[in-house]
Amino acid sequence: MNPEQLHDLLEKVKSGEIGISEALDRLRLMPYEDIGFAKLDHHRSLRRGFGEVVLCKGKTPDQVAGIVKRMAPLGTTMATKASPEVFDAVRQVAPNARYHHLAGLIVVGDPVPVKTEGYVLVVTAGTGDIPVAEEAAVTAETMGSRAERAYDVGVAGLHRLLDCKDKLLGANVIVAVAGMEGALASVVSGMVDVPVIAVPTSVGYGASFGGLAALLGMVNSCSPGVSVVNIDNGFGAGYLASLINRRIGVRH
Amino acid sequence: MNPEQLHDLLEKVKSGEIGISEALDRLRLMPYEDIGFAKLDHHRSLRRGFGEVVLCKGKTPDQVAGIVKRMAPLGTTMATKASPEVFDAVRQVAPNARYHHLAGLIVVGDPVPVKTEGYVLVVTAGTGDIPVAEEAAVTAETMGSRAERAYDVGVAGLHRLLDCKDKLLGANVIVAVAGMEGALASVVSGMVDVPVIAVPTSVGYGASFGGLAALLGMVNSCSPGVSVVNIDNGFGAGYLASLINRRIGVRH
Amino acid sequence: MNPEQLHDLLEKVKSGEIGISEALDRLRLMPYEDIGFAKLDHHRSLRRGFGEVVLCKGKTPDQVAGIVKRMAPLGTTMATKASPEVFDAVRQVAPNARYHHLAGLIVVGDPVPVKTEGYVLVVTAGTGDIPVAEEAAVTAETMGSRAERAYDVGVAGLHRLLDCKDKLLGANVIVAVAGMEGALASVVSGMVDVPVIAVPTSVGYGASFGGLAALLGMVNSCSPGVSVVNIDNGFGAGYLASLINRRIGVRH
Amino acid sequence: MNPEQLHDLLEKVKSGEIGISEALDRLRLMPYEDIGFAKLDHHRSLRRGFGEVVLCKGKTPDQVAGIVKRMAPLGTTMATKASPEVFDAVRQVAPNARYHHLAGLIVVGDPVPVKTEGYVLVVTAGTGDIPVAEEAAVTAETMGSRAERAYDVGVAGLHRLLDCKDKLLGANVIVAVAGMEGALASVVSGMVDVPVIAVPTSVGYGASFGGLAALLGMVNSCSPGVSVVNIDNGFGAGYLASLINRRIGVRH
Amino acid sequence: MNPEQLHDLLEKVKSGEIGISEALDRLRLMPYEDIGFAKLDHHRSLRRGFGEVVLCKGKTPDQVAGIVKRMAPLGTTMATKASPEVFDAVRQVAPNARYHHLAGLIVVGDPVPVKTEGYVLVVTAGTGDIPVAEEAAVTAETMGSRAERAYDVGVAGLHRLLDCKDKLLGANVIVAVAGMEGALASVVSGMVDVPVIAVPTSVGYGASFGGLAALLGMVNSCSPGVSVVNIDNGFGAGYLASLINRRIGVRH
Amino acid sequence: MNPEQLHDLLEKVKSGEIGISEALDRLRLMPYEDIGFAKLDHHRSLRRGFGEVVLCKGKTPDQVAGIVKRMAPLGTTMATKASPEVFDAVRQVAPNARYHHLAGLIVVGDPVPVKTEGYVLVVTAGTGDIPVAEEAAVTAETMGSRAERAYDVGVAGLHRLLDCKDKLLGANVIVAVAGMEGALASVVSGMVDVPVIAVPTSVGYGASFGGLAALLGMVNSCSPGVSVVNIDNGFGAGYLASLINRRIGVRH
Amino acid sequence: MNPEQLHDLLEKVKSGEIGISEALDRLRLMPYEDIGFAKLDHHRSLRRGFGEVVLCKGKTPDQVAGIVKRMAPLGTTMATKASPEVFDAVRQVAPNARYHHLAGLIVVGDPVPVKTEGYVLVVTAGTGDIPVAEEAAVTAETMGSRAERAYDVGVAGLHRLLDCKDKLLGANVIVAVAGMEGALASVVSGMVDVPVIAVPTSVGYGASFGGLAALLGMVNSCSPGVSVVNIDNGFGAGYLASLINRRIGVRH
Amino acid sequence: MNPEQLHDLLEKVKSGEIGISEALDRLRLMPYEDIGFAKLDHHRSLRRGFGEVVLCKGKTPDQVAGIVKRMAPLGTTMATKASPEVFDAVRQVAPNARYHHLAGLIVVGDPVPVKTEGYVLVVTAGTGDIPVAEEAAVTAETMGSRAERAYDVGVAGLHRLLDCKDKLLGANVIVAVAGMEGALASVVSGMVDVPVIAVPTSVGYGASFGGLAALLGMVNSCSPGVSVVNIDNGFGAGYLASLINRRIGVRH
Repeated sequence: MNPEQLHDLLEKVKSGEIGISEALDRLRLMPYEDIGFAKLDHHRSLRRGFGEVVLCKGKTPDQVAGIVKRMAPLGTTMATKASPEVFDAVRQVAPNARYHHLAGLIVVGDPVPVKTEGYVLVVTAGTGDIPVAEEAAVTAETMGSRAERAYDVGVAGLHRLLDCKDKLLGANVIVAVAGMEGALASVVSGMVDVPVIAVPTSVGYGASFGGLAALLGMVNSCSPGVSVVNIDNGFGAGYLASLINRRIGVRH
Repeated sequence: MNPEQLHDLLEKVKSGEIGISEALDRLRLMPYEDIGFAKLDHHRSLRRGFGEVVLCKGKTPDQVAGIVKRMAPLGTTMATKASPEVFDAVRQVAPNARYHHLAGLIVVGDPVPVKTEGYVLVVTAGTGDIPVAEEAAVTAETMGSRAERAYDVGVAGLHRLLDCKDKLLGANVIVAVAGMEGALASVVSGMVDVPVIAVPTSVGYGASFGGLAALLGMVNSCSPGVSVVNIDNGFGAGYLASLINRRIGVRH
Repeated sequence: MNPEQLHDLLEKVKSGEIGISEALDRLRLMPYEDIGFAKLDHHRSLRRGFGEVVLCKGKTPDQVAGIVKRMAPLGTTMATKASPEVFDAVRQVAPNARYHHLAGLIVVGDPVPVKTEGYVLVVTAGTGDIPVAEEAAVTAETMGSRAERAYDVGVAGLHRLLDCKDKLLGANVIVAVAGMEGALASVVSGMVDVPVIAVPTSVGYGASFGGLAALLGMVNSCSPGVSVVNIDNGFGAGYLASLINRRIGVRH
Repeated sequence: MNPEQLHDLLEKVKSGEIGISEALDRLRLMPYEDIGFAKLDHHRSLRRGFGEVVLCKGKTPDQVAGIVKRMAPLGTTMATKASPEVFDAVRQVAPNARYHHLAGLIVVGDPVPVKTEGYVLVVTAGTGDIPVAEEAAVTAETMGSRAERAYDVGVAGLHRLLDCKDKLLGANVIVAVAGMEGALASVVSGMVDVPVIAVPTSVGYGASFGGLAALLGMVNSCSPGVSVVNIDNGFGAGYLASLINRRIGVRH
Repeated sequence: MNPEQLHDLLEKVKSGEIGISEALDRLRLMPYEDIGFAKLDHHRSLRRGFGEVVLCKGKTPDQVAGIVKRMAPLGTTMATKASPEVFDAVRQVAPNARYHHLAGLIVVGDPVPVKTEGYVLVVTAGTGDIPVAEEAAVTAETMGSRAERAYDVGVAGLHRLLDCKDKLLGANVIVAVAGMEGALASVVSGMVDVPVIAVPTSVGYGASFGGLAALLGMVNSCSPGVSVVNIDNGFGAGYLASLINRRIGVRH
Repeated sequence: MNPEQLHDLLEKVKSGEIGISEALDRLRLMPYEDIGFAKLDHHRSLRRGFGEVVLCKGKTPDQVAGIVKRMAPLGTTMATKASPEVFDAVRQVAPNARYHHLAGLIVVGDPVPVKTEGYVLVVTAGTGDIPVAEEAAVTAETMGSRAERAYDVGVAGLHRLLDCKDKLLGANVIVAVAGMEGALASVVSGMVDVPVIAVPTSVGYGASFGGLAALLGMVNSCSPGVSVVNIDNGFGAGYLASLINRRIGVRH
Repeated sequence: MNPEQLHDLLEKVKSGEIGISEALDRLRLMPYEDIGFAKLDHHRSLRRGFGEVVLCKGKTPDQVAGIVKRMAPLGTTMATKASPEVFDAVRQVAPNARYHHLAGLIVVGDPVPVKTEGYVLVVTAGTGDIPVAEEAAVTAETMGSRAERAYDVGVAGLHRLLDCKDKLLGANVIVAVAGMEGALASVVSGMVDVPVIAVPTSVGYGASFGGLAALLGMVNSCSPGVSVVNIDNGFGAGYLASLINRRIGVRH
Repeated sequence: MNPEQLHDLLEKVKSGEIGISEALDRLRLMPYEDIGFAKLDHHRSLRRGFGEVVLCKGKTPDQVAGIVKRMAPLGTTMATKASPEVFDAVRQVAPNARYHHLAGLIVVGDPVPVKTEGYVLVVTAGTGDIPVAEEAAVTAETMGSRAERAYDVGVAGLHRLLDCKDKLLGANVIVAVAGMEGALASVVSGMVDVPVIAVPTSVGYGASFGGLAALLGMVNSCSPGVSVVNIDNGFGAGYLASLINRRIGVRH
């Protein structure tokens, strides 16, 4: 029941077309989102303008294609952690789908237009972190932010990080992607005064325990201004970064 | 060596007052921050305007007082996880210190002036989470943001959360503080379109494992837009929330 | 806004006393629980008849007393993990409060009347598990169930367990409380055909890791019919057991 | 030795047909279950009416088929976590076997007749949780309960959950299946007054640690009325849910 | 009901003093241990000759004293992890109680007589492991074994261990007690051909994680012949060692 | 340098054939085992009579075959965790090799003759534990013990376990093999007065965490007399059981 | 900007060729390493003489080949954890590449010349640890150290370790490689007075938890002089060992 | 039996004073260390020159005093993790004992003379890490190394670290002490070409899990040249650093 239907109901109550008791019953069962709670409206508009995001992991190519087919007409649709096989299946139902190989990301439909001059900077400690970083960067771009990249600037060679200080200082939000000990987030955060979203990655071996070491390192960051998302969750970081970036607008 | 000193040095090279070789030596040893790398300037200004933050845990009252004494003249100074004993010691050296009992937070000096209409909303799942929440709220306030509170609105009674939907929808950033399973962050994030900073707390017992359960739950949030700080790290959440809030300005 | 108020609103719409637009606005902001969603009504009735439960851990005696004072007039109120100090404070504001020493449980007000012949059986592996078991048993009793006890019947001496087979076979629900390896739940469950609610306890030392070993053991139970609550969560087990028991009624 | 045989033995002692010493020996070795301990009788009847359940994981198709062949004549038989290859092998020995693809569940024989009007409701947070949910639902159905489903109603979009409130409020028992942070169980439990059996799933990646995050979240549920089974253990949840549902009968 | 009583019952059946039906009833409820199942006989004799063992941890001095008072008349009684306060309370009810300070062990009554020439050897890596080692040694002695000790022979100084090779080679069973990395068990086991019972201790700090590192090390021992008991469980090791030693008798 | 060589050396010193200084040098470098330290003699005899044991995991078939080829002439040789491919390679170099499929165990050469009437009993909780159990049983048999088996007697159906009480009570040592919660070891140990060697298995899924749950459960056994080896380490349990069994000889 | 360029800049300031303001700008942006900070010079020389090291894990053969192609002209280049497929790809772009099969290590270019008489000794507990050990040994050799090996000298047979005492006592640094309980490092360290670098390996199964047990064991080493690198990180150990060895020079 | 005694024995064999058989017996039992195995000689000299080190944790003041009393006459003696109470007890038996309050370190006797120009540098991330750092520094000094300190130079403010680059570049070995995420070790190691010994500390709260986060971070360091000791093990780091430093001698 949307506001129009509610309006209509009240009209009918007023005109006596339906009794109070029946109106009461209808209202009692009225779907929650229909009474105008802003979030849900927003949620709908989000769904329309951007669509939901499909996590391909644990779904067959056919299942993903089926979901995308249903969602794509409603707006831009993303599918994360997608293999080439999944893309092949998606392409059958959505010919305009684009596949970002490195990121394992499928985007169907146009990105949200960029309305802000500011940008999201995605940095990585190593080259092995790039797939997750691309997932973040492409997500941010698809959601209406400009994204800059500075890859392979890990703390074991500080000069590499210092070389990209301009990019660091100009960003509205920074996504720091790192596996192993995950120290990049703290070091970067100590150099800037903007939010740093840390993404631990499962890059590494042995006591990296699939990203646990990086996750714990980042959560314990000694530098305020750092917050953390799930291991390998480039999508989540890009989504959040774009959310903040679009709010901030141009940086002065 | 600040830019003025660098300018002066170059003047002296130009005038021949000092030789090139000596200038070379000085430049070689020149403290990094002195060549104008913006962050460090910013860092200084941050130190001046706001000062560093002392983590009292693991320090004696005298040690904390000693540090505060040195820092307070430089600007507003905060000390976190402070016991009443620590406050007694700090008050000796900083008579204008204020103690936020619930938050275990000492603030010396004036808060950064609020320049934005938007606010940070701090929500908690239970009453046991309030100390950490107050740490977040007071930190945000001290750093120049308005902070609103909505406490004890955990997901086991959704109506409590839904009752404060206006506060939720009006916020620029939300800090969600919860122990046990930490579900509050996901539910809140699903209702709004602003960044949610999740703070797991060590509230609970048994398999909460000192906040580990809440931390893992929040990091695995099924709702994009959530990022996480350390267990009980209200300060870090408030700092980051204020960072974002001040950037955003008024929300339209 | 309760149903009566909603009825009144519709009456006014019908009579033209208030316009449709204004009615729309009021309905839009109408507190969720007021439109008659059964659960919330039930929730209210639950609150009235039984009251909420206060977890004392992490609260000062004064805080607990304050909460109890506010809640006790609304119905029976329980406070769990309560020390004698907490009870002293509670007694000041609720003279009829009773303290169950072993269980660390405060009950204010009358128990829900028992309306079913069936009973909840609480068994423990050792004597060290009794405090948690009493928390479960008293909770079940307070919530309207008869509770039987069979303590110190751990699997290292099967004959002790077999000796109480009548109690086991007569129960509607069994709460199995055990620390260390938590094997009691599986063995009991294999002997009966009723739900077994397993409560791991932090009893033990070394590799019991505060109850983790028992928790994992119980979650991995090889016997279907077992489900698990948090370590030391006697309250949760008693609550759930009573919920089931009251539904079942007499056992045939 | 069953009661009849025991009776016969005593007769012979009385008549002097066998001596006391020999009777003593026989009694000494008397199988425990034969002296009428109800559970074991019940166990036998359970075996007859329902049969045991084979966990296929870690067994070859031939091994599973061999076990099913032996058990199927005794009553309805289930095999869980079964691959299509296992089903092919089972079909050779039990032509009436049915395979539930999504659930990976083989059922041989007729379900237990449904004798109660009440139903078990199985809800999932996401689509990835459906295989485990189906394992629960089909198990409950096979064991004599009606099962309803409400899938993909995770807490990140509360309106989806609220949309199925009627199903929620009408259920006798609810099985809540969720991976990632497992918040669904708490939220659902807060809306109803029936037992909620939480099933953590291994859906997710990174810090979900194969379902550990969801398991911890559910065990720490802030809502009483929730208990937990093993990760991905849809069978166990369905079994327990049906156990409770059949006991309760019609809900008033 | 012991064998004599059973004999008596059968006599009465034979003589007609009691009817078959009544005999049947008595047998049906006959306590399990009474029908002569050897273990339970042994259990009784164990209880009589040796008594149960009380884990003091988590019990008040009064509770321990109460248990000991009830058990001591039945045979030798031990109480482990006992503080001096507990001993004071026990001494009130059992004046002949002896307290082994280092081991935190109370023994009431005479040790089981030593009937074998062989001995249990208890070795420790460091001096900090001695309390746990003494718990093992005194337990073995109380249970009827001779115990030898070789303390502070950790692997960081092999010569210390090699110096006691005669003791090592002469033992029937060896209890190896070590914290930190727990390497002692493997090294000792590699030098002998008798069972080595490894006891990890909580000695150490940091990444010893309360004995977890030693436990894992010992469980992973590269030397066959090693098995492990719980962290700090000297009692369990001494009990098991004596069990084996008494069986073996003199070593040739 | 063996005792004979040492004798020879001393002869030469006595006869003056070699000087004291040279003798001193030779003795200084004398391999440790050559001076008659009993263990090492024993070790040699063990190597000769039984040979070392090859863990195939992590070695290629060719590597295992190479090692077996070198060792087999010295005595009976075992290779554990061997795939059929490994056996094919081993058979090329040791035609008399036998492969125990279930156990994944290769034995080359004759078993050590059985000289004791007593036996090792291997019990399992489920059928999935049988491969590990067979590894234990065949190892014990190869090392000179009689082995009995009682499989699938898990605690969820106590009657199955009680049915084999004669086997339990007659054993010299019991190896209890169980995955999931590992409760079997405690229950068995409570029924007998012989050592129980517990083997946790990786059977199970979800929160069994590859056998961790069973390992913790067994280490925390509430029944003294239980000790534990590594997860899936049937070989180690069989080795240790045979070590004890051969020592004990006939049980009286 | 190198020192020469800086000198040139100052010359131009002195001569007035460029103004102070422009010089200031250039200095402000001057790449950090160019002002002569020793480390970065060293880093360059390191890069030239030795090149960076590529971790192949998580990269495709083509990606590794691409990186090697770019780096090889600058100096000796290593690629670790390389499969034969990776080597095939690398060989296309670097025909002089050598592949160390056991170590999974590719080396392109000449090793750093050996300038010291001392050597690095690499020891392993078992044969399964050899791949990691070879990674360490070849790395040390490539970096300019002589490397000796002593493999399969685990602590379960001390005589094997004692047999290689000369090698142990002659080394400048020892790399101790061991899985399972990792006891080798402590035992070796107790026999020598040189640094021991411990490398835990993922060799083992069950509770070795992929090397965690060995890691914890080594970190808890009771012998001072031991430090630890990541699980399976032979490269890191060899690198560090060579670093120390080259510094020490000949050992007296 | 020392070399002189061995010489004497051989003399007597030569002269016929004792027979070969008797000589054989004596040699067979000859204590291992007496035949001149260098390490043990060294060990003795180490004990004489430096003495052992007492870990006070878990020992009573009297026990520590007793050990020190026995050891002090043999050479310099250290006691770590010592409380003031322990020091009071030690002072009674060793009046020349010195107490390093911050480090919790007692030193009895003179430090080993410094014979090398090079120094050990101890750096910390924060002020809370200083006690552990002092333990390292004083240990290194006591063992014959010069120690420099650079405290509170954590990576969240890189300029602080860069400010002490001269100290960093001049060191022979660096001990990097840090809690929380432990990033300091990687960053420092990337700036120098000397060994970095990382000491994780238990400083921090929440997800630092008593130093586990820092330990994992340091073990996963992306910079070769880093190795790790136990959490809070300043002594071990200082010992190892001095071992390396004394070997290297002056740095060129």
